[in-house]
Amino acid sequence: MKTREIAEFLRAELVGDGDVEIDRVAALECASTGEIAFLEKADVEIETRASCLIVPSGFLREVSHPVIRTANPKLAFSRVAALLHPTPKTAPMVHPSALVRESARIAEDAVIGPFVCVDDYSTVGSGTHVHAAAIVGRNVHIGNDCIVHSNVVIEENCSIGDNVILHPGVVIGSDGFGYVADDRGEHHKFPQIGTVVIENDVEIGANTCIDRGALGETRIGQGTKIDNLVQIAHNVQIGKRVIIAAQTGISGSTVIEDDCVIGGQVGMGDHAVVKSGAVIGSKAGVLPGKIVRPGVWWGTPVQPLDEYKVQNANVKGLARLKDKIKRLEAELKALKSRP
Amino acid sequence: MKTREIAEFLRAELVGDGDVEIDRVAALECASTGEIAFLEKADVEIETRASCLIVPSGFLREVSHPVIRTANPKLAFSRVAALLHPTPKTAPMVHPSALVRESARIAEDAVIGPFVCVDDYSTVGSGTHVHAAAIVGRNVHIGNDCIVHSNVVIEENCSIGDNVILHPGVVIGSDGFGYVADDRGEHHKFPQIGTVVIENDVEIGANTCIDRGALGETRIGQGTKIDNLVQIAHNVQIGKRVIIAAQTGISGSTVIEDDCVIGGQVGMGDHAVVKSGAVIGSKAGVLPGKIVRPGVWWGTPVQPLDEYKVQNANVKGLARLKDKIKRLEAELKALKSRP
Amino acid sequence: MKTREIAEFLRAELVGDGDVEIDRVAALECASTGEIAFLEKADVEIETRASCLIVPSGFLREVSHPVIRTANPKLAFSRVAALLHPTPKTAPMVHPSALVRESARIAEDAVIGPFVCVDDYSTVGSGTHVHAAAIVGRNVHIGNDCIVHSNVVIEENCSIGDNVILHPGVVIGSDGFGYVADDRGEHHKFPQIGTVVIENDVEIGANTCIDRGALGETRIGQGTKIDNLVQIAHNVQIGKRVIIAAQTGISGSTVIEDDCVIGGQVGMGDHAVVKSGAVIGSKAGVLPGKIVRPGVWWGTPVQPLDEYKVQNANVKGLARLKDKIKRLEAELKALKSRP
Repeated sequence: MKTREIAEFLRAELVGDGDVEIDRVAALECASTGEIAFLEKADVEIETRASCLIVPSGFLREVSHPVIRTANPKLAFSRVAALLHPTPKTAPMVHPSALVRESARIAEDAVIGPFVCVDDYSTVGSGTHVHAAAIVGRNVHIGNDCIVHSNVVIEENCSIGDNVILHPGVVIGSDGFGYVADDRGEHHKFPQIGTVVIENDVEIGANTCIDRGALGETRIGQGTKIDNLVQIAHNVQIGKRVIIAAQTGISGSTVIEDDCVIGGQVGMGDHAVVKSGAVIGSKAGVLPGKIVRPGVWWGTPVQPLDEYKVQNANVKGLARLKDKIKRLEAELKALKSRP
Repeated sequence: MKTREIAEFLRAELVGDGDVEIDRVAALECASTGEIAFLEKADVEIETRASCLIVPSGFLREVSHPVIRTANPKLAFSRVAALLHPTPKTAPMVHPSALVRESARIAEDAVIGPFVCVDDYSTVGSGTHVHAAAIVGRNVHIGNDCIVHSNVVIEENCSIGDNVILHPGVVIGSDGFGYVADDRGEHHKFPQIGTVVIENDVEIGANTCIDRGALGETRIGQGTKIDNLVQIAHNVQIGKRVIIAAQTGISGSTVIEDDCVIGGQVGMGDHAVVKSGAVIGSKAGVLPGKIVRPGVWWGTPVQPLDEYKVQNANVKGLARLKDKIKRLEAELKALKSRP
Repeated sequence: MKTREIAEFLRAELVGDGDVEIDRVAALECASTGEIAFLEKADVEIETRASCLIVPSGFLREVSHPVIRTANPKLAFSRVAALLHPTPKTAPMVHPSALVRESARIAEDAVIGPFVCVDDYSTVGSGTHVHAAAIVGRNVHIGNDCIVHSNVVIEENCSIGDNVILHPGVVIGSDGFGYVADDRGEHHKFPQIGTVVIENDVEIGANTCIDRGALGETRIGQGTKIDNLVQIAHNVQIGKRVIIAAQTGISGSTVIEDDCVIGGQVGMGDHAVVKSGAVIGSKAGVLPGKIVRPGVWWGTPVQPLDEYKVQNANVKGLARLKDKIKRLEAELKALKSRP
């Protein structure tokens, strides 16, 4: 692809030679001939051997290689990367080793890899690739243009939208963790007969688990991205465009509204509500039933970041506080013994 | 099933029409015709379209639909759900694609799904269902009426009781994490040649890992329930009827006695002992070797919940404490300068 | 094996009968006839029925059974265990159910288990055993004498050294978690087209995930050992002989230098650097960009262990501090009201 074509694709302004051939994206520091890189800030000193740079609109310096100016260089770079490094397409097929039940319907241009199982009444949409050894249970519906990686398990009755990516080892629709104790303290399984609904454009990281609703559904909203090793319990409702980093755990029936950002290793009790746009820092803990308002939250139990910082500083200042009190005691004693 | 039959099955008192047909359980808010729901507290205002309600014994109001009175409505509801929504039974079979070694013994009425491997000398008990692509190592014994979900791996020499449920991606019998450093700081594997014993009625959540004993065994006691993504290290001993929520990690040789409840994301050091009936709150940290007595524990390192609350309040009060000290200093200064 | 042969193998001093037959290792407390155990400290009272004991050099007591004296008994014991309990060797084969692409190269003495997939251009080295249902993507290189357990997934272009152990459910080379938001708050995938390099002698625990580099590589250094359910994000660089305990999560581009020890459930922000030899306690939190110097670190955010202890004591002492202030206030009041 030529630099001119890339600029056109991005609808962005090209400065310099439009005929330079680009065939790969690369990081600024390691880029070399034939590669395009990007620069996030206009005023950074750079030295690169990239053949082309995507730069912020405010980048006005003269450089030896062609540059493409755009408002959001990182986004533009991502779009160019998707263009130059498309996921290699496998020819449509149902691998002869796969086991697809007769009542299942596979779109003609889908790919069903080796050792895949697709159980009764399930459907796999157009352009979707189910990789080796993924297991699709009974009455599961997978939309179009999805990538279901190897060893994913989707249990019965769950539903996956279009353009969803499930990384290896993801489990969708395992039973929720719900028991009722009898008089003798023995735990009886509360019914876990609901479903999971994954909306369009969701991506779910490796070995993440999403339990089915106990009676209703667990839902992951459109455009939400979930990292590796995350736990989503039964009946959790996650809104649209939410970001959840690795190893976070969300307890039953908790609601996370649209556009929230949840750090890694966060823990949330059950029946909490995180209001739209809230940001929760890594390792934070949200108590059951808590309502987390918009803003940035930190710590266990969560508090506004500002308060958290003040409190942390106060704790760090405790040694000095103790000294002050000791001094006060001494002075007071001296004062008391004054005639 | 008719309301009368459900009441008889529960040995509970029916008030109202005994001939109403019930075919599903549902949550109170979304239940409709043909569905049965439950009410946990007698004094809650309800509006439901359920055809029948299971209610506490103290529920005496007159309502338009039949009610079933019982001491523990949630438990009764769970039992009815198990009756109305049984796990669909697959006809006994060894799927032709499964690989069962000749020396392995599979009960006649077991189900061995597609792509399952059962290695030498292993046994699978009566009524047990091993789902697609589960891997059963050498000399593994699985009892009766178990459900081994897809992609479970059970490594050699481990033993699983009756009525055990292993959710997708569970790993039983991976090597424990034990090394000995030599003079040069290189880590040599300490032997991990013990086993795992899972007693009857245990349920283990998706992608949870239970390591084999280094020399002895790792044991999970009868009726214990473990959530998703939990880590149980080598030689851990877990008692009966213990509850362990998601993403908790328990280090080597730690003992958890009967009837404990462990929250999510708890971390326990090695060689700790949690005494029978203790409750440990989510995200708590237990130091190595610590003995946790019965009671409710919270925080890192764990302390009794009452102390934890007081301490938290004290920390929150630090700003006020600092003010007080400032005032004392000022007053003392004023006093000192008095003639 | 005779006690004499074991002592010779260890180049250690045997005291007592050299003709005793040993066929198993065991823990001190449960050892019996034919078994060898070890003692870490010379001055511990012991009562064992082991047929031989490996003891510290300073152990001079007379006991009824033969002893082998050595500087590091636990290491010696581990070496004897590896000798007496070798991983059972399977005869070299490619199982007929495995799918190995024509362009892939499998060493003659490798073992490829049932339902394994090896994709185009990949290689499996000499003596390596790929267990049932492991999935090896395109252009993956696995060295010699590796053990790849069941249900491991290695995605395309990743590289595994010699003598590496990957436990069940490990995922190598899943996409990193990187997105760029557009004006409307929608998240676009930042390219995740780098690789993972696992050097020699690494062991990785069950269900651990190691993401590929976004543009460059994620690297795990020689001799590093990683426990179960650990998350290693894109572009993380881990040095040699590092120990990482279970459920720890390391964010993107963070560097952990050689010989560090990281406890369980630790969380590290992105772009942090942990300097060679640092020790980070379980559950600690490292902020993004933080440089953690050699020493022992604890808490969130991490601080030197000594400071952490003092701070913890200070917090615990808050109730007493409040009392002191109350007393000061009273005394001051009394003083002020003095004529």
